[in-house]
Amino acid sequence: MNAGGDLALIRERKPLVHQITNFVVMNETANATLALGALPVMAHAPQEVEEMASVASALVLNIGTLADDWVEAMLLAGRAANRSNVPIVLDPVGAGATRYRTETSQRLLGELRIAVVRGNAAEIATLAGRKAQIRGVEAVGEAGGPELAREAARALGAVVAVTGPVDHVSDGQTVCAVANGHELLGTVTGTGCMSTAITGCFLAVASTPLEAAAEALVAFGVAGEDAAVGATGPGSFHVALYDALYNLDPATLDSRAKVEG
Amino acid sequence: MNAGGDLALIRERKPLVHQITNFVVMNETANATLALGALPVMAHAPQEVEEMASVASALVLNIGTLADDWVEAMLLAGRAANRSNVPIVLDPVGAGATRYRTETSQRLLGELRIAVVRGNAAEIATLAGRKAQIRGVEAVGEAGGPELAREAARALGAVVAVTGPVDHVSDGQTVCAVANGHELLGTVTGTGCMSTAITGCFLAVASTPLEAAAEALVAFGVAGEDAAVGATGPGSFHVALYDALYNLDPATLDSRAKVEG
Amino acid sequence: MNAGGDLALIRERKPLVHQITNFVVMNETANATLALGALPVMAHAPQEVEEMASVASALVLNIGTLADDWVEAMLLAGRAANRSNVPIVLDPVGAGATRYRTETSQRLLGELRIAVVRGNAAEIATLAGRKAQIRGVEAVGEAGGPELAREAARALGAVVAVTGPVDHVSDGQTVCAVANGHELLGTVTGTGCMSTAITGCFLAVASTPLEAAAEALVAFGVAGEDAAVGATGPGSFHVALYDALYNLDPATLDSRAKVEG
Repeated sequence: MNAGGDLALIRERKPLVHQITNFVVMNETANATLALGALPVMAHAPQEVEEMASVASALVLNIGTLADDWVEAMLLAGRAANRSNVPIVLDPVGAGATRYRTETSQRLLGELRIAVVRGNAAEIATLAGRKAQIRGVEAVGEAGGPELAREAARALGAVVAVTGPVDHVSDGQTVCAVANGHELLGTVTGTGCMSTAITGCFLAVASTPLEAAAEALVAFGVAGEDAAVGATGPGSFHVALYDALYNLDPATLDSRAKVEG
Repeated sequence: MNAGGDLALIRERKPLVHQITNFVVMNETANATLALGALPVMAHAPQEVEEMASVASALVLNIGTLADDWVEAMLLAGRAANRSNVPIVLDPVGAGATRYRTETSQRLLGELRIAVVRGNAAEIATLAGRKAQIRGVEAVGEAGGPELAREAARALGAVVAVTGPVDHVSDGQTVCAVANGHELLGTVTGTGCMSTAITGCFLAVASTPLEAAAEALVAFGVAGEDAAVGATGPGSFHVALYDALYNLDPATLDSRAKVEG
Repeated sequence: MNAGGDLALIRERKPLVHQITNFVVMNETANATLALGALPVMAHAPQEVEEMASVASALVLNIGTLADDWVEAMLLAGRAANRSNVPIVLDPVGAGATRYRTETSQRLLGELRIAVVRGNAAEIATLAGRKAQIRGVEAVGEAGGPELAREAARALGAVVAVTGPVDHVSDGQTVCAVANGHELLGTVTGTGCMSTAITGCFLAVASTPLEAAAEALVAFGVAGEDAAVGATGPGSFHVALYDALYNLDPATLDSRAKVEG
């Protein structure tokens, strides 16, 4: 893993990260992408998603406020990305909460070659075929853990990142645990979606999807730790998070990584 | 009224509050809901709104950037909520400003059993059949007052909360005036929508819709007062508002309520 | 130019600025409009855009996350604005990046009478028929400069504002350079869109579109300079930007303008 080196590459190359995401967090993930050093672009019209996705360096698909025309756009963009070898990260927001979300996640996984799936324990457990409890888009009572990540990675044929108090990333063989982060991340909507967008940024430069996913969670987690210093609640934390992403230091990032595996 | 007790219940139970709302404030109302202690979920696809609304503890309908497919989703979700006895709060954003907004508000009120309608004086006056002046989504020159709240509550068959410098909440009999809040609330877009979302949170736990509406305005108003301390404009105030909602103290909330009636 | 006087007029008259804009920045441009002192309203349904646009004092069209139904709404609103002599500002976000964005910009320019086009150098160069390089929605390697603004204004039959490190505004004859601003503006998504919304606010009160465009860039640039003081990254800068817009002093604004031409 080389989170610092890859962060430096992101800032040097400013990769274009095409995002088809939900209405709640669109501004937030664009700003997180920009603060890290990459270039976000949001586009969902069927007339342009293929053109945009094929010149991007990564594609982020997030079903947080899905609807049929948006899902079709994701499929068009995803196929174009696959043809151009642009890596895709999928955020199956709320899989398990409604049948529509579960089935759409499965459809995207079935029709596209996805590099990384990033979700909470309940979303990933649902997609891995386990029983899971989810309320809205929040995992409830699902422990996650290394086995879930490994099992899901095998079932889905993609690198899987299960985020929570400790994150687990697996390609079906290796499992890597990332303990960076801060509990205030759970008090701001869209921080999961931001970590997916950041994963897209690292996918654009890292050697493997496994490294990209782990490095992204280290970078985002360290930024969360920095943002928590002096924060007095979710509002001030949220603001400080962008400052922290912007000020992440490539030279010290790896020394701050709390990674095992 | 027991604003503190009900706030404590929200934090304990973390009720799921399903919101079909406008593009401008979606992030803001989700974050306000989360900061208060409840769980927001945004979903508007016809395939899933019934499933989501029927497991929620409250449903928030907000027509701020309405369009036909969204209105249909609101009706589907609303009927499912009614079947499952999930209380609904309606925010008729801009009723009176265009015929489409007025008629859509009337249609939602006609086809659904709405627990609380929360709006500004011009929106509520329009729905109560009075002449009102509205520019865009801002009330102009409409005084509001206890009579408007009572009259509208009777006309609409719902608890009505008319917000302004002083808020008035009525079930058609009782009128309760809430004087908490701060003028900086008027400088940030979506604070009205946030107060509607907060009303949804209290609807999930309070004994009656009247209490829920009044308690929500007390909680939101007190948070506004706290946020104004040290704010130097709408930006810093907006950030501090989430911190203030998060840090609201159930033990002192009722002693800070400026309520009459 | 009378930026201070026109800012004072905005605060006095609170003009209604109807915006049909993109999902990423809707909250941000509404808040920037409100912080400056005008009234934003977002509405895109075909049933209401004509009614809303014809009572507005300016119309902002922004294609940042365009789709066919939104483009149709822009045309409906734009024609209504034209009939009622409500000035229009167009933000051709990403023109040049995909054919759909370029063609849509051209269509809006062809079918509507546009007062001001505000874009980055690549977007404007594309519309002026020059070769341009754009990545997503970011101009790359295009210098801009006074000649581009003048040439584009002639080609498009509108006042053109090309923003960048130095902004250039032209009506095809005069070119005016505005050097206010701060590099942190480039680290927050939607600051270009905000400057377009602010242009809409000034269009509602200024004597000519040329003055409106230049004054808006002075006001927004000065606010950016103020916001940068004490900012530690894009998050804190973004928050301070709303405070700075709100606290802009009409009495000193023109003395701070860095304008040539």
